[in-house]
Amino acid sequence: MHEWTRKHLLSIEELSKEEILTILETAESFKDISLRPIKKSPVLRGKTIVLLFYEPSTRTSTSFSLAAKRLSADIVNIPVKSSSVQKGESLIDTVANLEALKIHTVVMRHSRAGAPMMLAKHTNASIINAGDGCHEHPTQALLDMFTIKQNKGSFDGLKITIVGDILHSRVARSNIWGLSKLGAEVTVCGPPTMIPVEVEKMGVKVTYDLKEAIAGADVVNLLRVQFERESGMLFPSVREYAAMFSMDDTMERFMKKDALIMHPGPINRGVEISSSMADGKRSVILEQVTNGLAVRMAVLYLISGEKNNSEEA
Amino acid sequence: MHEWTRKHLLSIEELSKEEILTILETAESFKDISLRPIKKSPVLRGKTIVLLFYEPSTRTSTSFSLAAKRLSADIVNIPVKSSSVQKGESLIDTVANLEALKIHTVVMRHSRAGAPMMLAKHTNASIINAGDGCHEHPTQALLDMFTIKQNKGSFDGLKITIVGDILHSRVARSNIWGLSKLGAEVTVCGPPTMIPVEVEKMGVKVTYDLKEAIAGADVVNLLRVQFERESGMLFPSVREYAAMFSMDDTMERFMKKDALIMHPGPINRGVEISSSMADGKRSVILEQVTNGLAVRMAVLYLISGEKNNSEEA
Amino acid sequence: MHEWTRKHLLSIEELSKEEILTILETAESFKDISLRPIKKSPVLRGKTIVLLFYEPSTRTSTSFSLAAKRLSADIVNIPVKSSSVQKGESLIDTVANLEALKIHTVVMRHSRAGAPMMLAKHTNASIINAGDGCHEHPTQALLDMFTIKQNKGSFDGLKITIVGDILHSRVARSNIWGLSKLGAEVTVCGPPTMIPVEVEKMGVKVTYDLKEAIAGADVVNLLRVQFERESGMLFPSVREYAAMFSMDDTMERFMKKDALIMHPGPINRGVEISSSMADGKRSVILEQVTNGLAVRMAVLYLISGEKNNSEEA
Repeated sequence: MHEWTRKHLLSIEELSKEEILTILETAESFKDISLRPIKKSPVLRGKTIVLLFYEPSTRTSTSFSLAAKRLSADIVNIPVKSSSVQKGESLIDTVANLEALKIHTVVMRHSRAGAPMMLAKHTNASIINAGDGCHEHPTQALLDMFTIKQNKGSFDGLKITIVGDILHSRVARSNIWGLSKLGAEVTVCGPPTMIPVEVEKMGVKVTYDLKEAIAGADVVNLLRVQFERESGMLFPSVREYAAMFSMDDTMERFMKKDALIMHPGPINRGVEISSSMADGKRSVILEQVTNGLAVRMAVLYLISGEKNNSEEA
Repeated sequence: MHEWTRKHLLSIEELSKEEILTILETAESFKDISLRPIKKSPVLRGKTIVLLFYEPSTRTSTSFSLAAKRLSADIVNIPVKSSSVQKGESLIDTVANLEALKIHTVVMRHSRAGAPMMLAKHTNASIINAGDGCHEHPTQALLDMFTIKQNKGSFDGLKITIVGDILHSRVARSNIWGLSKLGAEVTVCGPPTMIPVEVEKMGVKVTYDLKEAIAGADVVNLLRVQFERESGMLFPSVREYAAMFSMDDTMERFMKKDALIMHPGPINRGVEISSSMADGKRSVILEQVTNGLAVRMAVLYLISGEKNNSEEA
Repeated sequence: MHEWTRKHLLSIEELSKEEILTILETAESFKDISLRPIKKSPVLRGKTIVLLFYEPSTRTSTSFSLAAKRLSADIVNIPVKSSSVQKGESLIDTVANLEALKIHTVVMRHSRAGAPMMLAKHTNASIINAGDGCHEHPTQALLDMFTIKQNKGSFDGLKITIVGDILHSRVARSNIWGLSKLGAEVTVCGPPTMIPVEVEKMGVKVTYDLKEAIAGADVVNLLRVQFERESGMLFPSVREYAAMFSMDDTMERFMKKDALIMHPGPINRGVEISSSMADGKRSVILEQVTNGLAVRMAVLYLISGEKNNSEEA
């Protein structure tokens, strides 16, 4: 296994193929822990991990929190609503203060693209990007890749289709970077207003037709329609979106026999996907949730371990 | 001691007398832990318990949280206000996701009667009902019964009066089921608008007169007036309620010499009860709080233990 | 080292010089823990510490929370917004209930001066005052004193200037009590409307001129301008305040060569202090944050240890 030397996890774009594979292999060894009666490993005992979420999140923060607890780390949850940010403190000062508390690792979500990178330059703590604006969501892409690896074995020549609002999706962006590095062929599909200009330069194919997009695909990854974000304005209505891009039962026959359906959740039943498809045998949506825990344990372990070796020992 | 085989704790109604007694006996053995200098037992180490409270609660959630910590479990607190529920996720999908995170036990409060039962049918996790609408609040009734047992020794022929808004009280309902199974005689008392129609079918006596209700009672359990709920509308005013049903000092002489006063808290001093009665020698209100911890430790232990034995080992 | 016998930490005013020094010496021995790879000591294992913050706080509550975790205590965070207080429960009843849960120590912040003292009279739990109105903020003063001791060695004859809204500052009040007891000379400086009448009776000098205040000072402690509090009304505008009392680069030449700059944080860059001064070589602002952790570990240890020995063993 490739030796891990990176201090932060800021994006998939910056990772090498070997680094991605190191995370996935480490995740594999951690997956067992959550299946044991005693779901606990002592590897991060005495480490402190801060969850600094400037955007609300249950799913990702619960997953990170649980991952940290199962590795015996101490966790400090800083709900930004009640934080010093409201007293006018800058992001850099907030993190400088966390660093002064001798914190190893800050897991951070922010609505502004690039916020974690900016912080990483100004702190000795390790930063894990848990989603920054429309930029990247590295651990989501890693858990998607991990789920694909567990089901398909290898990435070489695998055909993966991502459907939805590619333009605003940090999940799509991170997946495209990662899957391309691993040798998969990525196709993106959605309404023209939701496909970034010149996305082909990232090495992906584009189609605006769902049937065409899923034909021959080994994996179909559906993005969540973000009712709460701006993307709603890029399409006439949810009903029209669903009519053209919903993975419903009529799509079944266009799919490869062993194609998987993925979704980062929470799903909008009847919008991106029908209930029967979401709960059907192709769906690995809940497997993704389980794998998210293993991947985040791996990331916390690799990041906090590196820190420990270089700076503090 | 009766062997525990039940996966969920959804209601007192469904429990047998033996099951109730098993919980009370287990609680007895756990009560000591909180009196030790080191208040910690390792029995749930490596188990994950989720607190999923759709209604705000300090008292019950703190009690469960502390109980879980003293048993060395990991706890994930999901404040529903900031959860995926707000992104439109259904209850079943929320719990399916928790299950995918390999969570053992979900302690759940919900404003809708029956919500925990519905969930229990759709998940492999164990569900503990921490209060569902006007239906049941099993751990409150269990801690009430535990407190009575500790003070009175046995339930046979014991006369217990419950005063207040019986109609909307999940505490009353759970107590009636439990106390009846254990052989106590239950009387309910309150304004006619707050007594359920045909409540006698649950095996209780009814009276609308407080003096009559407390005469001969071994235990008087006062329900909280829920200013924040709908019950206020069932009575002209709080002042009038207090005038007729407040356990104030003038009631003292109508009570049996060794009768206890109980209240689930938080108390409204001067409404359900006078300050001198609340703090007086009959009152076991704070003892109930202490016992709540022991009872919840017992429930978490029995429920998470069962799960462990059957599914995962 | 002086033996610790005090049950609560309510104010600096009530402490003797020896008691303050005991805390600072204990903090010294705890400071190392946060610099180790495994930041963990088992001394408070099985103790339960409650954070009861009636005013929002990230900085102080995170510091206490981390301190408790590094000592292996269990922590219960009671966010008052969602607590029983909103159901009309009195402060005394809230704490009586915490006590019934067999909690050792309550760390409490309240907007009302004297609230922690009042509670201490009505509970068996130990109370640590984490800031009460305009009265005191003992652990902030202790960490300030600790930082001075680490940098200057001794307090005898040391000249310390506090700048800002002395009138409303619990930080100032606690520092004045503590530094005077330790033998330092304290000067306060600020606009006349922000200096308490008869403050000289506390043994401090007063000046309204920043240059005069910092000339000869060994330490300059800048208070935060509380935009969110009433103090804004005591001065025409923030701009005017900054013009007269900001520690900006032009002040550098009036300071002693080895004078320190302190600030309890979060800083308002460009108001109390310029960015270059805040980040410059005189500034020990982040050191204060680090030291806050050590001081709070010491306080929790001394307070919870005393409790343990006298009442429970």
